[in-house]
Amino acid sequence: MTHPAPSFEQLQRYEPLALRQSIAAGAYQGHTSGLGQGRVQANIVILPLDWANEFLRYCTLNRQACPVLDVTAPGDPFFRNLGTAIDIRHDVPRYRVYRHGELSEEPLDIGHLWQDDMVAFAIGCSFSFEQPLLEAGIRLRHIELGRNVAMFRTDIDTRPTSRLSGKLVVSMRPMKAAAAIQAIQITSRMPDVHGAPVHIGDPSLIGIHALDAPDFGDAVPVAADEIPVFWACGVTPQAVIQASRPPLCITHAPGCMLVTDLWNSAL
Amino acid sequence: MTHPAPSFEQLQRYEPLALRQSIAAGAYQGHTSGLGQGRVQANIVILPLDWANEFLRYCTLNRQACPVLDVTAPGDPFFRNLGTAIDIRHDVPRYRVYRHGELSEEPLDIGHLWQDDMVAFAIGCSFSFEQPLLEAGIRLRHIELGRNVAMFRTDIDTRPTSRLSGKLVVSMRPMKAAAAIQAIQITSRMPDVHGAPVHIGDPSLIGIHALDAPDFGDAVPVAADEIPVFWACGVTPQAVIQASRPPLCITHAPGCMLVTDLWNSAL
Repeated sequence: MTHPAPSFEQLQRYEPLALRQSIAAGAYQGHTSGLGQGRVQANIVILPLDWANEFLRYCTLNRQACPVLDVTAPGDPFFRNLGTAIDIRHDVPRYRVYRHGELSEEPLDIGHLWQDDMVAFAIGCSFSFEQPLLEAGIRLRHIELGRNVAMFRTDIDTRPTSRLSGKLVVSMRPMKAAAAIQAIQITSRMPDVHGAPVHIGDPSLIGIHALDAPDFGDAVPVAADEIPVFWACGVTPQAVIQASRPPLCITHAPGCMLVTDLWNSAL
Repeated sequence: MTHPAPSFEQLQRYEPLALRQSIAAGAYQGHTSGLGQGRVQANIVILPLDWANEFLRYCTLNRQACPVLDVTAPGDPFFRNLGTAIDIRHDVPRYRVYRHGELSEEPLDIGHLWQDDMVAFAIGCSFSFEQPLLEAGIRLRHIELGRNVAMFRTDIDTRPTSRLSGKLVVSMRPMKAAAAIQAIQITSRMPDVHGAPVHIGDPSLIGIHALDAPDFGDAVPVAADEIPVFWACGVTPQAVIQASRPPLCITHAPGCMLVTDLWNSAL
């Protein structure tokens, strides 16, 4: 590079297209939380066609956990419905490559791995509903503590396809009752980003036995006057795919999402 | 049959499973409007796997027009997520078979046409949102006049896949302003059955030039103090598929829907 890499503060002022161009040029390789000027960020899953066809059926049957915002044509690396010139081979800061279910590499670009039978999925993410919750005055403890949200495997079966099946993964946010009610109202209006909670209250009723030991993310304390509120989580499809061990699957690295041109407020 | 066929009044009292069993036994071959005790009725599309995979991408990209309620595994004739023992080969009163885009037959059963690479789609239908509109006191003129809803081709492009593309088809219901506002509120909460309207007011803005000459269904008059309200319509996918002329496509016959076990009020 001839120019110095932009600072995080500079990146925060970038519009999504400029941000993606910086990322594609290799000038930024970190997480996307707080970037993109309030635009929708998406989870990414890339699969060869045979698995992609089945995965789209799985997502259709499990839309709360797997809300598909866009799906590419086989072999086409562009998301045509999420914004300007979004090339999934280059526009994510950091990827993960799984071979037969095992993490094999964490590249910054996947141009060399792209195949003409590949299909890319952009899946809605809870970042999108956290913004309207915050704007409604609801406090989110994991953000206040600077932690990742706490995520748990439940004993709730997702709807299976022939090779894809598994338990629902949920994210948990502790809230006082009034805030929980308001959060239910707000997220019910956002079916493209997981929608209403799947559970509130006693975690053991959905197979969670230690709120202080999440399966993914960070532990987040629940106060005595709070209720844990559980939403379907986009980790579900990634966990289900890894368990079924397709020969090749590419995802974004945790926290390193695709920043689209869509406004969160339009979802 | 050893028993006389049930009357329409008898059928109206049947629970969905009993209704489907009567239909599968050949005891009823008519439309399903008013049957099924308030349960969700679905549009049906059946395609061979190659086309089905592309059609699911098309539906995902055009969810307002094509909300998929369930999709079967390839070769599996049962909708596993819509109720008890729903066999799509027998449980619709009347089917339509299209070969290379042309209507070829209208059978009462498709057991003889089923292939082990076929996939069946159940797609949400505006019957489901008309019930909560009526329950909210909104008058629906086409129902009061005993007519089919008026449907129009628009100049709005749907999002294409490689072989599936075409204009959005909408249904129109005339309403006074206050009812239109309320209808927008109610249907916004039902994304699985077309969701909020796509347009209100001047039909020429979406390429409709004669409200008294619908492309599908019946003409429905609009009074001087009323606004036409337009919703994305499940006829869209059928029109798009026929235009692309797959070798074989099976649908329900107009008005002869699949009655599921799901409650409309749960959508």
